[in-house]
Amino acid sequence: MTVRFGLLGAGRIGKVHAKAVSSNSKAKLIAVADAFEKAASDLAGQYGCAVRSIEQILAADDIDAVVICTPTDTHAELIEQFARAGKAVFCEKPIDLDVERVKACLKVVDAEAATLMVGFNRRFDPHFQAVHDVIAKGEIGTVEMVTIVSRDPGAPPVDYIKRSGGIFRDMTIHDFDMARYLLGEEIESVTAQASVLVDKAIGEAGDFDSASVMLQTATGKHATISNSRRATYGYDQRIEVHGSKGAVSAENQRPVSIEVANASGYTRPPLHDFFMTRYLDAYAHEISAFIDFVESKSPASPSGIDGLIALALADAAVKSVKEGRTVKVSEVTGVMADRSIFQGR
Amino acid sequence: MTVRFGLLGAGRIGKVHAKAVSSNSKAKLIAVADAFEKAASDLAGQYGCAVRSIEQILAADDIDAVVICTPTDTHAELIEQFARAGKAVFCEKPIDLDVERVKACLKVVDAEAATLMVGFNRRFDPHFQAVHDVIAKGEIGTVEMVTIVSRDPGAPPVDYIKRSGGIFRDMTIHDFDMARYLLGEEIESVTAQASVLVDKAIGEAGDFDSASVMLQTATGKHATISNSRRATYGYDQRIEVHGSKGAVSAENQRPVSIEVANASGYTRPPLHDFFMTRYLDAYAHEISAFIDFVESKSPASPSGIDGLIALALADAAVKSVKEGRTVKVSEVTGVMADRSIFQGR
Amino acid sequence: MTVRFGLLGAGRIGKVHAKAVSSNSKAKLIAVADAFEKAASDLAGQYGCAVRSIEQILAADDIDAVVICTPTDTHAELIEQFARAGKAVFCEKPIDLDVERVKACLKVVDAEAATLMVGFNRRFDPHFQAVHDVIAKGEIGTVEMVTIVSRDPGAPPVDYIKRSGGIFRDMTIHDFDMARYLLGEEIESVTAQASVLVDKAIGEAGDFDSASVMLQTATGKHATISNSRRATYGYDQRIEVHGSKGAVSAENQRPVSIEVANASGYTRPPLHDFFMTRYLDAYAHEISAFIDFVESKSPASPSGIDGLIALALADAAVKSVKEGRTVKVSEVTGVMADRSIFQGR
Amino acid sequence: MTVRFGLLGAGRIGKVHAKAVSSNSKAKLIAVADAFEKAASDLAGQYGCAVRSIEQILAADDIDAVVICTPTDTHAELIEQFARAGKAVFCEKPIDLDVERVKACLKVVDAEAATLMVGFNRRFDPHFQAVHDVIAKGEIGTVEMVTIVSRDPGAPPVDYIKRSGGIFRDMTIHDFDMARYLLGEEIESVTAQASVLVDKAIGEAGDFDSASVMLQTATGKHATISNSRRATYGYDQRIEVHGSKGAVSAENQRPVSIEVANASGYTRPPLHDFFMTRYLDAYAHEISAFIDFVESKSPASPSGIDGLIALALADAAVKSVKEGRTVKVSEVTGVMADRSIFQGR
Repeated sequence: MTVRFGLLGAGRIGKVHAKAVSSNSKAKLIAVADAFEKAASDLAGQYGCAVRSIEQILAADDIDAVVICTPTDTHAELIEQFARAGKAVFCEKPIDLDVERVKACLKVVDAEAATLMVGFNRRFDPHFQAVHDVIAKGEIGTVEMVTIVSRDPGAPPVDYIKRSGGIFRDMTIHDFDMARYLLGEEIESVTAQASVLVDKAIGEAGDFDSASVMLQTATGKHATISNSRRATYGYDQRIEVHGSKGAVSAENQRPVSIEVANASGYTRPPLHDFFMTRYLDAYAHEISAFIDFVESKSPASPSGIDGLIALALADAAVKSVKEGRTVKVSEVTGVMADRSIFQGR
Repeated sequence: MTVRFGLLGAGRIGKVHAKAVSSNSKAKLIAVADAFEKAASDLAGQYGCAVRSIEQILAADDIDAVVICTPTDTHAELIEQFARAGKAVFCEKPIDLDVERVKACLKVVDAEAATLMVGFNRRFDPHFQAVHDVIAKGEIGTVEMVTIVSRDPGAPPVDYIKRSGGIFRDMTIHDFDMARYLLGEEIESVTAQASVLVDKAIGEAGDFDSASVMLQTATGKHATISNSRRATYGYDQRIEVHGSKGAVSAENQRPVSIEVANASGYTRPPLHDFFMTRYLDAYAHEISAFIDFVESKSPASPSGIDGLIALALADAAVKSVKEGRTVKVSEVTGVMADRSIFQGR
Repeated sequence: MTVRFGLLGAGRIGKVHAKAVSSNSKAKLIAVADAFEKAASDLAGQYGCAVRSIEQILAADDIDAVVICTPTDTHAELIEQFARAGKAVFCEKPIDLDVERVKACLKVVDAEAATLMVGFNRRFDPHFQAVHDVIAKGEIGTVEMVTIVSRDPGAPPVDYIKRSGGIFRDMTIHDFDMARYLLGEEIESVTAQASVLVDKAIGEAGDFDSASVMLQTATGKHATISNSRRATYGYDQRIEVHGSKGAVSAENQRPVSIEVANASGYTRPPLHDFFMTRYLDAYAHEISAFIDFVESKSPASPSGIDGLIALALADAAVKSVKEGRTVKVSEVTGVMADRSIFQGR
Repeated sequence: MTVRFGLLGAGRIGKVHAKAVSSNSKAKLIAVADAFEKAASDLAGQYGCAVRSIEQILAADDIDAVVICTPTDTHAELIEQFARAGKAVFCEKPIDLDVERVKACLKVVDAEAATLMVGFNRRFDPHFQAVHDVIAKGEIGTVEMVTIVSRDPGAPPVDYIKRSGGIFRDMTIHDFDMARYLLGEEIESVTAQASVLVDKAIGEAGDFDSASVMLQTATGKHATISNSRRATYGYDQRIEVHGSKGAVSAENQRPVSIEVANASGYTRPPLHDFFMTRYLDAYAHEISAFIDFVESKSPASPSGIDGLIALALADAAVKSVKEGRTVKVSEVTGVMADRSIFQGR
């Protein structure tokens, strides 16, 4: 079977997914849509597919699944439309910046028994997946403390910041999902501190560029997250898990693994310059997993619920910074209680 | 000039200092005192020095300086006695578990214009010192985020825990000092979370064995600390500093640097098994620095104030865990305000 | 422009090239030929191309270039046929096991002004290429000593050994080419020692499984090569270049970059298990370079001459082991003198 | 028991041994002798020992053992004198530059049943010793290939070169001993190539500054050695052993283990700047081992025979370069045959 794809959005992340879909022998990219005609036609030219409007893709008989890479404020509406149209949906995170809107959207997905997968690409990185495997095999015993360092190479433009929902919903959201994935149990409380150290304009826009977060589960497991919007040395992406019998870690990746030695010392090249190259394999594996879910009609993972919970953790972090205290996830939203209403799709 | 030493306490850490003093060409170990006669005479035999009572050392003409390695609850009293007797004092951390008692003690030290150095040995580790040097030279720009991982190889007996003042005052206190040392400015707020994951008996004794801490300075700089009482892989001691122009880190140390490769992979030996070997060089450099302060009659560093502030940070962490909120250091104690009353000795 | 490919040989290395050709947006795999019908049809099915005989590919109008992955003893004949048919030729190493036969073949290639590229894939590995770039930029000054470690994960069957031409022509040949590539000047003398340590049957077949080689250039530069047919820890592929101003090295690659720590130490996974995964990127870049040569009609590199010289170095190594002495490359063959007769194609 | 030492020679290596002896709790440095009065008195002042003539040390009742650090051409004569005087002798390598002279000297040692230990300090490096232990425990199976990289930070003055006996007898001699130590069996043949790449003056003095060596044992095991007189990145000292079940390696050591990251990459400091710091621990362990041999009156290791064989390997390397061929150790000297005449002392 070949899964026939429509791509919604031909921007930076849309290009990444177009490549992943096109390289997959079980997938075929049929059409691409974008508000900017030229962006769509350029991508269509590169991969030999059609340019269509979103409405045409919605109505198309020759499309089984869509990848949603449009602006965040359109995600929930599009998920609902395509779920109702019987298409499988892969949506970039976040579903929406508002928890209630996400919940409403997931109810539609649930009612339609639609396949929805949310783009937490890092779960599909082979190195992080190997870390998860080591944990799953019991090699480090019971997980006790997860440490995540996640730093961008450089701060985005303030215009981006303003539409982003803030550092916790835009950037840390990936780390919240990774923490859940590695802890293996739900997070109960969030404590965060944040400040503006990189770019004053970010502060003036009401956001932060440097953040530290502590998470705790009901059984007392910890996770800590360290975020910065600027690391001169590249895209810093490390995870480390300490358990009762040992620890496992995934080091940073580099485009080339050489070392130059001279009188100044031994120098290895900087890290990858951003997610498009750092997570190249992860994006390919992610689409591959989505195709498997579509083919097998089994619930996708990470699911809409995973997207919802990560967002709720971000909301709790925002509240924690504002109020200077530890925030229970249950305070922020009834998400955990609501969880049972969803069938895990 | 040779500095003539008396050693108070011949236990585990006393032995470490006896070795450091004896190996230093500018020092001479004259006498050792210990409540357990045999501990004192064994150490005296090994290093060819006398066994004396604390009173005899206090009264001795042939002793310039003492190293206090007795139980914590005797530290403040001994510091005061030896300061009054005109001896230079090196005291193992902490000065006392009670901030007010520490302040009273430091007033005596100040009044006597005595030399007092507190045993934050990690500042003298050559690797951590090299990290500090890199920062001082401006190589990483402005410091923004300090990350400290500090894990013991195994939990101590519950009897030790009961007398320890709790994980923050006993273990994290070193990390609080290191955070201040690397941040280069005072910490304004402390947020901590802690749990019992290693040994239930530690929880029954009212303490924790796993802790995460976030610190913030007035200018918004962050530090995070991750502590566990048990790491199967050895004594885990790492620091990492992220700044505006780059980052610097000090990796873990191993007794031997080999790697064995076979079908299971590439294996390096575990870390040092505890502080006595991991910080062997640090203890030697620490005593050497103390001797320099004694000889030059300049204020010692880390000073009594450094000991006081680290303790106040520990108190703030305790309060933070209890109340589930960020605690300002100013809440806990008037330490920062009081600081000016001390002359930095 | 799209370069239309025929693939000759659908075995292990044929599959690797089929994938590289198919993934390249400037290439199209038109047909595959193999003496075993099923091998050809399986591969054709996987990549959606035709099955044809070699004769059909030779006569085809819709094929611009061929990749020769057939058994070694057919290479020279096929190169000549396809060169005469006006097709661009990419041929797996070696062109032939006999230097004189290679020279005769290259004369045909030269007479036809055909494009011929020889499959020294390692030159296209991004890490080794980065090493070459560092040298080219002068970062380590003048190259003085090249060190190559190249070990296979496990010894091949004795049947393979018997047809292989021996360890120097089959395995070390890659390292001879790499040494030339990194030294940046021709090798003047070869000294080798070899023994049977892995598998007695290899010795009984008249070959060796463990070899050490020293090379020297006219200006006195050194290269050393260490080969073994069996490394339990994986496919060991390292290069290191020492120069007047510094050194540069490329470490081994692993499928995943994680580390597991426990009481036994810190363990990283084994290396790649062989060239198909270790050099995946190299094969893709290699075909990409070939396409560029075909499109630009410029001389290919590595060329037939590069293939010839590497074979001559292997012959010199064989002679060195046999005679227990350093062998000048000029002794073995008139290759260097003949070099001028070839136009570098 | 305390072993009472006389030190002959207060130069660079003499100072290293003075420190090692003085720091050892089972040793006492009684006297130092040097042709330059001031060198002797400076060292004596530093360690609180006497200045004496060699004759006085020879006649002294209060000296049990001597450390010979005088110029090479005096070693054999001094060993004989002190052996006859009943003192235990530790002598820096080499015993003499002439194999026959060494053999004559060892006969005297043997006749006197004297304790003689030769200064192959690297055997006592904790990292290299750990490599040896891994082999001894069978963790890598049967040893097959030893790889040694040994490069000095900078070329010595030509005056030193002229008296040195040449690169193989002066520098590679340590690597010959290490190869034997790790191979665990005697070397049968030596093949070497050498050139002048660092300093023409070294070539004009009849020596080389860059050398590669291949060794082979009777059972076909290999060792390769790579030497250069100049490595801008520090004192490069690495060993690696490949065996039937795995491999073990010892990486380079650095004074500090930090890493600085910025836009140019990740930089670790250069290596140790020379043997005095790189092998600090090794020198201490070496003297400690010597003291144990003296106390237990057991044969010392590395012995005079070890010194003799390493020299014979160097002679074979010289011959190999001159004649452009593999040289059997048996050609160079009757050392192996003679071996039985020595009682291993």
